[in-house]
Amino acid sequence: RIDGRRLWDSLMEMARIGATPAGGCNRQALTDEDREGRDLFVGWCREIGCEIRVDRMGNIFVRRQGADAELPPVVTGSHLDTQPTGGKFDGVYGVLAGLEVLRTLEDNGIQTEAPLELVVWTNEEGARFSPAMIGSGVWAGEFSLEYGHNRADKAGKTLGAELERIGYLGEAPAEPHPITAAFETHIEQGPILEMQDEVVGVVTGVQGIRWYDVTFHGTPCHAGPTPMADRRDPVQALSHLCERLYSEVKAYSDDARMTCGDLRAEPGSRNTVPEKVVLALDLRHPEPEGLEHLHRTLYRLAEQVQEATGTTIDVREEWHSPPVQFDRGCIEAVDGAVKALGYSHRQMVSGAGHDSVYVSRVAPVSMIFVPCAGGLSHNEKESAEPDHLEAGCNVLLHAMLERAGV
Amino acid sequence: RIDGRRLWDSLMEMARIGATPAGGCNRQALTDEDREGRDLFVGWCREIGCEIRVDRMGNIFVRRQGADAELPPVVTGSHLDTQPTGGKFDGVYGVLAGLEVLRTLEDNGIQTEAPLELVVWTNEEGARFSPAMIGSGVWAGEFSLEYGHNRADKAGKTLGAELERIGYLGEAPAEPHPITAAFETHIEQGPILEMQDEVVGVVTGVQGIRWYDVTFHGTPCHAGPTPMADRRDPVQALSHLCERLYSEVKAYSDDARMTCGDLRAEPGSRNTVPEKVVLALDLRHPEPEGLEHLHRTLYRLAEQVQEATGTTIDVREEWHSPPVQFDRGCIEAVDGAVKALGYSHRQMVSGAGHDSVYVSRVAPVSMIFVPCAGGLSHNEKESAEPDHLEAGCNVLLHAMLERAGV
Ligand SMILES: NC(=O)NCCC(=O)O
Ligand SMILES: NC(=O)NCCC(=O)O
Repeated sequence: RIDGRRLWDSLMEMARIGATPAGGCNRQALTDEDREGRDLFVGWCREIGCEIRVDRMGNIFVRRQGADAELPPVVTGSHLDTQPTGGKFDGVYGVLAGLEVLRTLEDNGIQTEAPLELVVWTNEEGARFSPAMIGSGVWAGEFSLEYGHNRADKAGKTLGAELERIGYLGEAPAEPHPITAAFETHIEQGPILEMQDEVVGVVTGVQGIRWYDVTFHGTPCHAGPTPMADRRDPVQALSHLCERLYSEVKAYSDDARMTCGDLRAEPGSRNTVPEKVVLALDLRHPEPEGLEHLHRTLYRLAEQVQEATGTTIDVREEWHSPPVQFDRGCIEAVDGAVKALGYSHRQMVSGAGHDSVYVSRVAPVSMIFVPCAGGLSHNEKESAEPDHLEAGCNVLLHAMLERAGV
Repeated sequence: RIDGRRLWDSLMEMARIGATPAGGCNRQALTDEDREGRDLFVGWCREIGCEIRVDRMGNIFVRRQGADAELPPVVTGSHLDTQPTGGKFDGVYGVLAGLEVLRTLEDNGIQTEAPLELVVWTNEEGARFSPAMIGSGVWAGEFSLEYGHNRADKAGKTLGAELERIGYLGEAPAEPHPITAAFETHIEQGPILEMQDEVVGVVTGVQGIRWYDVTFHGTPCHAGPTPMADRRDPVQALSHLCERLYSEVKAYSDDARMTCGDLRAEPGSRNTVPEKVVLALDLRHPEPEGLEHLHRTLYRLAEQVQEATGTTIDVREEWHSPPVQFDRGCIEAVDGAVKALGYSHRQMVSGAGHDSVYVSRVAPVSMIFVPCAGGLSHNEKESAEPDHLEAGCNVLLHAMLERAGV
C-alpha cells in the first residue's frame, strides 16, 4: 500500500508553485512556474535513483529499471500544467500518484519484472497552447513535431521557443516506444462519483471533443449616427448563434456539451460596432454520431445567422479528438485491483480529454478516477479528499504491479 | 473664403501620423502618435503668430488677438485623437477647419473685434480612456480634474501620467472662461446628408448617450464532464441578454441605438466555462424619455436573465450624457452663413457625442456638419469630399466673423 500522507504532502508542495490567492494554481504550460514545477518533480525522481529522459516536445520520461530490461515498460503519468485559474489536483495528481508508486516500491525494495515508466506530458490543458494533449499527441504521431513546436499562445510566443527558454527542449525523439500497458489516475472533474458516493471510477473510454474558432466579421461603424438597420454587427450575430446553438445542444441530449470559453472583440472600442468577434468554442459528445450531429448543427446555424445578419461567419475547426474506447485488458486490471482493495466503484466514460487518449493509439491503456468536491474542476476551488487520492493511488500500484509482474 | 486646397493638404499631412495600412488612422489619445499630431498642429499655429496655452487636461487653446482684448473670444475646435481603427476626418476636420479660418484671416490681414480661439480637446473619442469628451468635460466642470487624471486605459496607464509622459500636462487650470460663441465643424458620421444630397447640416443638438459596463459572473468549470444543467454560464447569460435587448431596442423606435463595442471573457480558456464576461455597452436616444426607457429596459432584462441563468449580472453605469439643445443664436448664425453662401442644407440632431456637448454647458454653441461617404465613421475607410469640407469651413468662417465682428 502507498503512503497517502506523503502523496498529499507532495501535492501540497507542488501546489505552492503558481499558487493563486483564491487557493488554486496558475502554472500554465512552459511558463516559469511550469519550469519550477518540472524541476521540483525531476529532483524528487533523482532522489529515488530513476533515469530521466526529455523528448523534443518536453515530455519527461522517468524510468525505474525492471528485472528484465528487454520487456516494454508499464507506464503511468499525466501533466503538471494547469488552467490559468486551475486547481491543485487536475493532472498533478496523476503525476504524483505515479511518483508515490515508485517511492513505495523503492521503500519496500521491490523489483518489477518489466521496467516502470512515469511520464509528464507537455501542455495537456490546451489553455496556453491549443490544442490540448499536444505533448502526448505529437509523441503518439497524431501531430507532427513541427506542428507542435509552432503552436502559439495569445502573445504569439511559440511552444518550441518556450520549451527552449525554460530548458525542457530535450534530445530524445518525440515518438512512441513499445509499452506493455499504461494507466493514468485523475480526479473525475465531474459530479458522478460524488453523487453516487463511490470512491473509484474504472474508466472505459473518453468522450469526443471538437474545437472551433468561430469568427464573426462585421462592418465597424459609429455607435451613434448609424441606424440599426444599416449595421452588420458581429455581436448580434454572436448572440443569435449562441442562443440557437445552446438551445439545440441542450435539446439534443443530456450527454451533449457546449462551452464558449473565450471571446474577443476587435478593435474593442465601446462606441464602435466591432469589426470582428472571435469565439473559442468546445463541443463534446460520447458517441461519434452525436458529435457529428453537433458539428453539423454548428455549421447549419452559422449559415442561417450569417444570412439573417449580413455578417460573415467563418467556422474553423481547430481540433477533433474522436471518442475513445480503452483497452479491455487494462480496464480489467483496474477493475481487479479495485475489487481486491474493496473500494466502491463504477465503470464510467471520461468527460474530459486526457493524455491517455493519445497514448491509447499506440498502447493498451485505461484510467482510474477519484471524486472531486462538487464535480468542480478548471476552478481554483477544485478539491479532493486525501482518502480518495490514496485509494486511487493504491489501485494504480496494484494495476501496475499486476501488469509488470514482481 | 477659405483655401480648400490648403485645408485638404493639412488634413492629409496630419493623416500620415498614425496612418494604418487600410487607409485610416490609429492616433489614440496621449499615445506617441497623439503627441506627434499635437506637435505638428502647434507648429502650424506658431507660424501664424498665435499664442498657445495648454491646460491641466492637455486641452490646447490657440488664441488670435482681436481689436478689443476685453471681449470674450469666439471659439472653435474639436479633437485630434482617433479610434483604434479610425478615419482621417473625425475630429481632425474640426481642428484643421479652425486653423484654416485663422490662416485665411492672417492672409487677408483681417482683424476681428473679439479674439478668436481654436481648441484641441483631449481624448474626445473615449476609445483609449473612458468616457468620451473627457477633456472638454473636465474643463466645463462636468468631471473633476482628479477624475479626469485617474481614467485608466486597458493596460492600466492613467490619463494623467500619459499627459505628463507626452509633455502635454499644461499649467493653465482646466476650467471655463467667458466665451462669446462657439462653433464646431465635423463630418456627420451618419448617412442623412449624403442620402438627401445636402452639403451642410445645421446642428441643433446632440442625442443622449449612456454607457455601461455589464459584467456577467458565472462559475468556472470544466467544458467536458460538467452537465449543462449544472452550469452557471456567463456566455449564455450574455447571449440571452443581447438577444432580448437588441430586439427590444429595435422594436422601441428607429431612433434608438444599441452597440456592444467590446467583449472580454475571463480567464478566457476554451475548455473552461468563463468566470466572467464583461460587455462594454452604449445606448442612445435623442429624447430624454426614450433614453430613460432604454436604460430601464436594460435593468429589467438583466434581472430576468440573471434569474433564468443563475448568473449574477452587474450593470454599472459608466457615463450619462443627456440629450443637448444647442443655442438658438448660434444655430441662427450657422443658418445665416449657409444661406448667404448658398449651400444646400438641413437642420439635424447629431447622433454622435462631441466636445460641443460640454462646451454648451458654459457657452452658446452650435455645430456644422458635412457629409461623409456612406455615413461611415469609426472605420478606416471613412472618407469625405474636399468640396464638402471646404463648404463647412466657409460656413465656419462666416459664422465666426458674424459673432466676433470685423
Ligand atoms: N483533464 C483536463 O482537464 N484536460 C483538458 C483537456 C480537455 O479539455 O478535456
Ligand atoms: N464624434 C465622435 O465620434 N465622438 C465620440 C463620442 C461618441 O461616442 O459619440
